[in-house]
Order: sequence, then structure tokens, then C-alpha cells
Amino acid sequence: MSGAAPRLGEDALIARYFAPLSGPGADNLRDDAATLTPSPGHDLVVTTDTIVAGVHFLADDPAGSVARKALGVNFSDLAAKGAAPCGFVLSLGLPTDWTEDWLSVFAAGLCEAIAAFGCPLLGGDTVRAGGPAFIGITAFGEVPAGQMVRRMTAEVGDRICVTGTIGDAAIGLHLARASMPAWAGDLDRATVDALVDRYRHPRPRVALAPALRAHARAAMDISDGLAGDLAKMLKGEGRGAEILVSDIPLSAAARAAIAREPALLDTALTGGDDYEILCAVPEKDVDGLSAEAAAAGIAFSVIGTVTAGDALPAFTMADGAIRTFPGGSFSHF
Amino acid sequence: MSGAAPRLGEDALIARYFAPLSGPGADNLRDDAATLTPSPGHDLVVTTDTIVAGVHFLADDPAGSVARKALGVNFSDLAAKGAAPCGFVLSLGLPTDWTEDWLSVFAAGLCEAIAAFGCPLLGGDTVRAGGPAFIGITAFGEVPAGQMVRRMTAEVGDRICVTGTIGDAAIGLHLARASMPAWAGDLDRATVDALVDRYRHPRPRVALAPALRAHARAAMDISDGLAGDLAKMLKGEGRGAEILVSDIPLSAAARAAIAREPALLDTALTGGDDYEILCAVPEKDVDGLSAEAAAAGIAFSVIGTVTAGDALPAFTMADGAIRTFPGGSFSHF
Repeated sequence: MSGAAPRLGEDALIARYFAPLSGPGADNLRDDAATLTPSPGHDLVVTTDTIVAGVHFLADDPAGSVARKALGVNFSDLAAKGAAPCGFVLSLGLPTDWTEDWLSVFAAGLCEAIAAFGCPLLGGDTVRAGGPAFIGITAFGEVPAGQMVRRMTAEVGDRICVTGTIGDAAIGLHLARASMPAWAGDLDRATVDALVDRYRHPRPRVALAPALRAHARAAMDISDGLAGDLAKMLKGEGRGAEILVSDIPLSAAARAAIAREPALLDTALTGGDDYEILCAVPEKDVDGLSAEAAAAGIAFSVIGTVTAGDALPAFTMADGAIRTFPGGSFSHF
Repeated sequence: MSGAAPRLGEDALIARYFAPLSGPGADNLRDDAATLTPSPGHDLVVTTDTIVAGVHFLADDPAGSVARKALGVNFSDLAAKGAAPCGFVLSLGLPTDWTEDWLSVFAAGLCEAIAAFGCPLLGGDTVRAGGPAFIGITAFGEVPAGQMVRRMTAEVGDRICVTGTIGDAAIGLHLARASMPAWAGDLDRATVDALVDRYRHPRPRVALAPALRAHARAAMDISDGLAGDLAKMLKGEGRGAEILVSDIPLSAAARAAIAREPALLDTALTGGDDYEILCAVPEKDVDGLSAEAAAAGIAFSVIGTVTAGDALPAFTMADGAIRTFPGGSFSHF
């Protein structure tokens, strides 16, 4: 419509940076659409998440990290649904000051994630953003027909479990910003790096997908904070939860930060970007799921129980006090 | 991360405006993913297009029109591939000054297009844009297995055909802007309205999809201008084209505008937003495709022939001069 002369036309840009990332069905990105057909006896699972500079990532985050995050948040959704990633399409909104350097590092980050998860690029669209950069991904996975793990199907008495550790990314975000908080002063470099890494690089729990299908009654990924996402999993279904905060897995790095600034415990419980799995598991299946997680090298913790009623999940703190988190989740919005 | 207090939380917004638009497999948008499975013997066709305020639509375009355009540009891609739309996911980036009024009219526009094309919402993501509004759609269609109509497969001697009329939207864009161009001065209201309507409301040629599968050798939709998109369909494959400009279908409204400002003929040939079908059809199939288009109520014109060689498509003008359009297409980028 209006706008500056392009540095590299959209077609040249696609041919140079994105066509090498494309998979079967995408015809080397020389068409306006791709074909995608699930394996016989399987459903496709579709999810979409967009990340925006200044909202979901920092404008000066490394471009490769941004690419890995854009894919990771989507693969995390697929993993929680029990699905194996099989392809994605990309919508890339570039700000007016984009550079080819940024783009080439971004494409390299995509390439790394594509290789790690065996999930090719099927197509995309590159546009002028008019504002900050945004990256929209629609990702596809496969599950055996009818076996997608749902979010709203927990039952009273199910145990509530999480993978990995909680809160690292939310604490890491404070450390990734240009101005360090006062409490960061005497944290050692490795601790800071570990927390920032968790903020920048989601680790989607794709390896756990088959075990979730076999054992979990309900699951979602934790993207907007444990407290809020747990409430989201249960609300409107006449179910609540009792959570023992001492059972919530915290990394050594998160514990070190919380020791310096106790308010960071709330950050850990309500902050976003964990990209761990939250699931409700029948008591009889807990050991099986736990064993499969261990076999996949994924930490797995039971943190509470699904209860009856419409109240918000109740968190029993270390001092015995019971808290709820009414505003409990990060809103990207 | 930072930002103003939301007017309506993302969950409430989804429940109020988007859940009513959702289809089977989407679980009323209460999950983080949807399932989608093509009919037996069919491939899914996937396409994605994002539109941005100030780039692909005017910020003051009616919200319902914006919704219809966002869907229409994607359904147009599906139609050109011979696919029947079967679902879509939506990524909505809202500027900081969004209002519920805008959103409710936007949702009503989506609803209208969903009803018209029988293509439900499967899921989505609503985010703070940080800049102008953007709407990303990933749309899904179905074709019988292996029958997606490709873009790059035209053969020498194929006839080049288009649906509808060309250039209305590109001329309409001039008339949709706040300041009317001088040549618009004595156009009657109905002419202006017809051209603006073509700019705001793509008419994806979904009804022609089965006939394209049966008769077209190659097809794409015209989104970035006839001249540029034709070049895109043929380039790199050792094929060119001879086009007779007098055979390119122009509406009465476009003719009226061009009569007042002859430079608008170039606008018509190179401007964007036609969302008509451009296809290469073996001579023996032209009558069949033409008849099926007529039966579907879609105008259909033969405008030229595929030739050998790597030259840009040659347009023979009314005065016999031959022109090419090297910069020939609108870049959204």
C-alpha cells in the first residue's frame, strides 16, 4: 500500500531463507498452499500461537532464540495434547527496520528446532508488520484417532502432576531485561544464565506425548503461569484442586533467586513461559506415567489432587497458610 | 509483560465472541488445540495469510469487512488449489486502542463468512499487537488425494484464463482512501461503491474448485496483481505468456474510471486484491471449464496463451504495442 523499498523481495527472501527448511508436501514453497495428510488411523491436531516483540519476547532477544521460542510454544501445546509434531506454517511480520542479518539468524534458529523435532516448514507468509515484529505459527501434530488428550476432563481424585521445574522462565524474564533487579546482585553467572535460558528457550516435552495419551486424563501446557493455567484446566467443570507448594518442583537456580527475594515465589507460581506439562492423572496411572517420564529423561512431580467444587485451586504454603491466586495468570493481552 | 489493563480478559473474549463460531473438533474453544481429519481418500490443503492494518487494509475499514477480507484471501487460495474449505484458525493481534464494538462487528463479519462457506473456526490466539491490528488466518481445505491443483505446472500452448473482472479492487483502493483522487470527481456513486466493495470484500471462487481440479493444469489466485502473479506462475519453468489486453475482462465500473484516467489501466493490470483465479488450461479443456464456470455463475475469460522461454509475459495493448511489467506486482512487504 505504502512503504519503503524492500531490501529483498518476498520471493527472494523465501527462496533464500525458508525454502531450505521446507518439507514434503510444500513443493519447495513454490506454491500458495501445501498438502498435509495424517497417517492412516490418525487425527491431525492443530494449534496456533503468535508471539510479538515487546509482549511475548524482548525486542533484543537473539533472533535464533525468538525462532526457537515461536516454534517451542506451539510444540509444547502439541506435546500436552499427546501429539507428535509433523509440520507447521509460519506467518512472519517484519518491522520496518528488519535486517538480513536478523533474518538469517532467525532462519538458522528455525532450522535447529526443525531438526530437533523432525517437523518441517510447510508454508508461510511474510508481511510488513507496521509495528513490532510478530511470529505466528500454526503447528500440526498427529495422534492415533480419537486419542487427543483434552484439557477439561480431569476427575475428582485425579493427581495433579507437572514436568520439569516451575517458575524459572518468569524469574528469568526479570534477568533478561536491560536493567537487572537489585536481588540479582549476588547471583552467580551460571544461575542467571540458567534462568534466562529457560525464558528464551522453551523445552517442549514432545517425548512425553505417547505416555500422556496412555496415562493422563487431562493435560495442558503451562504457558501463562501454573496457578492460572491450573484454574483454567478445572474451572466451569465443578472441580478445584489442593496443591502442596512444597511439592512444586523448583530448580536450584529458582531457589537461589527466591532466597534473595521471597516475592519471587509468587512470580514462579503465577508467571508465564514455563512450557511444562500440567496434567491430571488417575491415581492408578501415576507410577506408570512417572516411570515413562523418567525413561524419557523428564522430571515429573505430583503436586496435588483434583477436588470437587467451583473454588479456585487452593495452594497450601510452607507455613500452612492456604492461598488462592484470583488474578493468577499472566495475560498476554 | 507490560501493558494497560485489559477491558475484557482473553478467556471472556473467546467465550463471548469466538466460541459461538467454532465447529466440531474445536470443543467450543475450551482446549489449546483442535483435531482435524480429512475425509477418507482426501488430502488436507493448508494455506496461511496475514493482513495488517495500514498494509493490507485501511485502519478505518469497517471491522466486518476486515474479517471477511482476512478469511476471503485465504479461501481464495484454497479455491485456486481446487480445495473445499473445511476449517480455519485465527490469530488476532489487537492494538492498544481496541474496543469491544470493533470486536463484536469483526466477529459478526467472521460469522457471515463462516456461514457462507461452511467453514468453522477451529481455534485461535488473541494477542496484544504492540502496533497496528493484524489478522492471521491458517485455512484448511480438502481435495481428493493427490489432486491439489499446482501453481508451477503450466505447459506451452495452454490457454491462460481468469475468472471475474480484473483491477476493480486496485482502483477501488484509491477510492476507499480518505482523500478522493481528482479523476473520481464525476464518477457516479454506484460506480464508486462497486469498486470500493471489490477492494473490501474478496469473493473467493470456491464454487469453481471442483472444475479446476477437473480441467486446469495449473492455477493460483490473483492477489498481488495479474501481471506479477502471471509471471510468478511461469517463471523459472522456461515458460512465458502472450496476453491480449483487450481480452482481459474489465467491469463497467473499471472502464468508467479508466476512461477518466487512462493510467488506471496499469493499476488494473498490476494492482493487488483481485482474488480471482488465474489458470492455465489445456486447449481441449477450455470449453468444459468455461461451461462449469457459467453454471456456477462465475464469469470466465481466455486472455492468452503459455509460450516457451524465460521472458516476462508479453501484454499486447489495444494499440498493438507489446509491454512487459518488470516490477509488475504489488509487494505487501
